[in-house]
Amino acid sequence: MDKGKLYAIGVGPGDPELLTLKAKRILEAVDYLFIPVSREDKRSIAFSIITKVVKKDWKIIEVLVPMTNDLVILQESWDETAKKISEVLDQGRDCAYITLGDPGTYSSFSYIHKSLVALMPNLKVEIIPGITSYQAISAWVNKPLVEGQENLTIVPAVQNREKISTQLDNFDNIVFLKAGKKYREIDEILKQKGISARLTLASRFGFEDGFYTEDLNELNGKELDYLTSLLVKK
Amino acid sequence: MDKGKLYAIGVGPGDPELLTLKAKRILEAVDYLFIPVSREDKRSIAFSIITKVVKKDWKIIEVLVPMTNDLVILQESWDETAKKISEVLDQGRDCAYITLGDPGTYSSFSYIHKSLVALMPNLKVEIIPGITSYQAISAWVNKPLVEGQENLTIVPAVQNREKISTQLDNFDNIVFLKAGKKYREIDEILKQKGISARLTLASRFGFEDGFYTEDLNELNGKELDYLTSLLVKK
Repeated sequence: MDKGKLYAIGVGPGDPELLTLKAKRILEAVDYLFIPVSREDKRSIAFSIITKVVKKDWKIIEVLVPMTNDLVILQESWDETAKKISEVLDQGRDCAYITLGDPGTYSSFSYIHKSLVALMPNLKVEIIPGITSYQAISAWVNKPLVEGQENLTIVPAVQNREKISTQLDNFDNIVFLKAGKKYREIDEILKQKGISARLTLASRFGFEDGFYTEDLNELNGKELDYLTSLLVKK
Repeated sequence: MDKGKLYAIGVGPGDPELLTLKAKRILEAVDYLFIPVSREDKRSIAFSIITKVVKKDWKIIEVLVPMTNDLVILQESWDETAKKISEVLDQGRDCAYITLGDPGTYSSFSYIHKSLVALMPNLKVEIIPGITSYQAISAWVNKPLVEGQENLTIVPAVQNREKISTQLDNFDNIVFLKAGKKYREIDEILKQKGISARLTLASRFGFEDGFYTEDLNELNGKELDYLTSLLVKK
């Protein structure tokens, strides 16, 4: 029997209309849907996005993506998810794994993919790109991400001071993702270096309480959650 | 009379199915379509993409985006395009400006936007993000762009050796865009620096003659065109 095919689908940053036509077509076609959830009791944001544009009675398999940096626990979860996917593919069924944003950009899919290739060397897989959060934020705040011959660096803000500092030495545009707890430190490093830059902080894009500001002083040093990005332009 | 609204629409990297649902909806709704062309006699790639998924009898206004680095000529063309767009908006008509890839990522739209805001301070504008070429290439070659706490830098390869070299000192993942004439030099700089990296070159994604390779030796030093990207992973 022929094996099934796996589709890894980026569902975009939150607005269901930012799904691609390809993502919608494949979601309508497949019967099996793998949904990553961060805790077993937590509803998947990616799933809530697609149900707004595709109505279908999928066979749904929730898979746990633990919120930890412990590589042993993570590897176990990736292997377990890969095993569950391989069981469906072995039955000759096509299936889709959905992910917020883009499957190639900081997505747990890339690890699951590796586990799966180890299990199924002849894996049939197709990756469907999705709009990233930082593209959506750039559109939202009406500011280009990058122009002309400038560079653009994307980096998770959860790094140590030294690494952030090094990256700030040679940039034209940087997007710091998950910057809710780190934007003050980044601002401080820029000031210490004497780098004059335009900062735009955007938080909770696509949610009702979402906002953005170009004046960090407005925030009074308040901590924000991980759905916060800081766009810095030299 | 109320002014019209301008939509800047990213139509993605080439595959018409990578348009977003939002892009399709807006293209179906607007009557006026601004299409950038690089020479007056050249057909627009962005336009050929959308006609595969949206059939409509738009009022089409082609606008010239000259392929030059001469800022005076460029500024003139941006101002002229802005003027044409403002004339349609002044009549209370909504219109769309289409762009390959994403309007915030190395798009001429960002300059036209600035010219337009100077003409119409109360411009109503909405930017619709699109899938970028480098995301599509990452999906095509089945390799993630960026994982974990790594950074991702995007840079046009058309830079001098010193700037390229500096950027290579501090990266985890770099995408060099328009790398057809520069991939050999980048490879050489990496070797000189003793940086061990995985290289993936992808050329003419979405075209019939498109290909990719992880072994630059296969190319025998051949020059490739500007629709060529080099993905470098440390």
